[in-house]
Amino acid sequence: MQNFDLHNPTRIAFGQGTVGRLAELVPAGARVLILYGGESARRTGTLAEVQAALGSRVVYEFGGIEPNPSYETLMRAVALVRSEELDFLLAVGGGSVIDGTKFVAAAVHYRGDAWDIMESHGTVVNTAMPFGCVLTLPATGSEMNKGSVVTRSATRAKLVFASEHVFPRFSILDPTKTYSLPLSQVANGVVDAYTHVMEQYLTYPADGMVQDRFAEGLLQTLIEIGPRVLAAPDDYAARANLMWTATLALNGLIAAGVPEDWSTHMIGHELTALHGIDHARTLAVVLPANLQVRRVSKHDKLLQYAARVWGITEGSEEERIDAAIARTRGFFESLGVPTRLRDYDLGTKHIDAVIRQLEAHGMTALGERGDVTLSLSRRILEASV
Amino acid sequence: MQNFDLHNPTRIAFGQGTVGRLAELVPAGARVLILYGGESARRTGTLAEVQAALGSRVVYEFGGIEPNPSYETLMRAVALVRSEELDFLLAVGGGSVIDGTKFVAAAVHYRGDAWDIMESHGTVVNTAMPFGCVLTLPATGSEMNKGSVVTRSATRAKLVFASEHVFPRFSILDPTKTYSLPLSQVANGVVDAYTHVMEQYLTYPADGMVQDRFAEGLLQTLIEIGPRVLAAPDDYAARANLMWTATLALNGLIAAGVPEDWSTHMIGHELTALHGIDHARTLAVVLPANLQVRRVSKHDKLLQYAARVWGITEGSEEERIDAAIARTRGFFESLGVPTRLRDYDLGTKHIDAVIRQLEAHGMTALGERGDVTLSLSRRILEASV
Repeated sequence: MQNFDLHNPTRIAFGQGTVGRLAELVPAGARVLILYGGESARRTGTLAEVQAALGSRVVYEFGGIEPNPSYETLMRAVALVRSEELDFLLAVGGGSVIDGTKFVAAAVHYRGDAWDIMESHGTVVNTAMPFGCVLTLPATGSEMNKGSVVTRSATRAKLVFASEHVFPRFSILDPTKTYSLPLSQVANGVVDAYTHVMEQYLTYPADGMVQDRFAEGLLQTLIEIGPRVLAAPDDYAARANLMWTATLALNGLIAAGVPEDWSTHMIGHELTALHGIDHARTLAVVLPANLQVRRVSKHDKLLQYAARVWGITEGSEEERIDAAIARTRGFFESLGVPTRLRDYDLGTKHIDAVIRQLEAHGMTALGERGDVTLSLSRRILEASV
Repeated sequence: MQNFDLHNPTRIAFGQGTVGRLAELVPAGARVLILYGGESARRTGTLAEVQAALGSRVVYEFGGIEPNPSYETLMRAVALVRSEELDFLLAVGGGSVIDGTKFVAAAVHYRGDAWDIMESHGTVVNTAMPFGCVLTLPATGSEMNKGSVVTRSATRAKLVFASEHVFPRFSILDPTKTYSLPLSQVANGVVDAYTHVMEQYLTYPADGMVQDRFAEGLLQTLIEIGPRVLAAPDDYAARANLMWTATLALNGLIAAGVPEDWSTHMIGHELTALHGIDHARTLAVVLPANLQVRRVSKHDKLLQYAARVWGITEGSEEERIDAAIARTRGFFESLGVPTRLRDYDLGTKHIDAVIRQLEAHGMTALGERGDVTLSLSRRILEASV
């Protein structure tokens, strides 16, 4: 096991009816900015419920945060916070809204060009505004971690920053708030959480016995509930387990003490930036190809994954690995999430542009061994056509 | 899944060589009291290493905290903190030292009779001194939770308190610090962690799919490493996994959203208070009998435990349950930890006194359904003879 440092101060308030707890969780007397995405937050009544729980606090609203939140939009929220002297942010939405809120929290007090936050990957952040979350879309885990992904529309740069200062003070997770989600977004959430686990698990053995067991437990849970969350949107137990699994998939716990990959994410980010494909859908395209191309360096862990997660114990080692990758692809497809570039009318001729983007963003030595060069990324993309 | 609130701000610094991180983790200029147990902390060099890392800070020492730390001893530490105006506590030891430190942290600022803290189970605690831990004995999980057990020697009352104010600020977990432990204490740690998981897992199904998977992963890990930690004290991977597993077994994570039992602990506490049996060893005596006596109300979870943890899938349901309980008992015995009262020269005639203690401490409706009455506790004790 590798040495690690683990610290996660976010409070989770989980369960049906917990939105009302905003009354106690947001400081009395706070001047609040509610950040949200589309109009579904209003249509479903969640915004009204949030407003009611905030009572007599001064509340402003900032809607229109896009999927893959843009720097340009977020800087308008920063200006509003400054002009109205607001002192608490409340994200109401999914990972994009929460990621955007983290950027706003860090940018408000930053005295240089706020894009520095992204280019430095967060190292310039010394303080941030306090904020909380009401999660409505389980997927990214942003509600209980210190990471954020923001895109600069002008340059199509999709970058990641992380800082101890942008842990949410609290996150409210009410599974019933997910009942009204479009099923395609729920399916995306399952794939996103699944891939988060795989990025932290499917590397090489490192004596992280507990971490492996936890990761396998999260994968097994997602495999069990994937069909259920799509078949019956109001299956509380299934939605509750999806919500909690997605949070645990990326809150630092299963990464502590073990190597991490993240090459699937970095390649996927460029596909989103260039072609607008949903984040999770890029992962579904890249992950099976990535496992296939790197099956030698991931050999031992692929066998463990085959046996413990999929129960595959028959056949030669290579056959078991083939079967495990096929089951992974099949699982994503069973959720209605395609796993090939051609499903998005993309092919070999589009790969050069992705590679150029990876190079421009310094993504030249990805993966748990730093051996995913641009040429290996090209092979992965070729295998994903 | 039940609604839950989860918040754990303790920072974990894990791995070989992390004691030196005290230099950054303890506030500069702090006036520190180091609390420890026996002389092994000095003999092994850990105290000297701690002192070196603390540099020029003012440091006092308070040794002699007993296993099952006593109120009487701890109040002497409280007096020292007050008289020397110390402002940071550092526990160097195992669960007893950390539990004791939590009591001192809460008692220093408490204005009434400090035993109120125990009798109120912590509800009177409104503030506490900051403190950190250097863990040397993996077992209780106290290094990353808000609970503490303290015994009043005069009345043989062993009570529990919990408070959000007594989370450690940080805990340093260096697996190499466990190499020199007596093997009986290591075995006790495995049993203690195992039973902690069982108290939170082996109840009734509550749709906590992730929680169940995590609990099963912890149990599987303990079963795998139990023989290894006894066979080779300097097996770093085994010791590291024991240390991290024991922490995760009782840091609030696997309890979030599911029912909890704890009757084995409450009955065990009385055996320790009356007869001085090591805490973990009382659990090894009570747990198998408890599962046996309550096999009807725990039926579904016992079958799940049999299948997922022990791989028992053959035979009738009752046979599988019998086998799972037998494997549990056999695992404890394989570690050299006895599982019968008679192994401590105790028998049926000693049960009345235990029941009277349970009654005196209000332990009349224990367990996940509150149905472990004094008469059921008696049956459990009878089955443990």
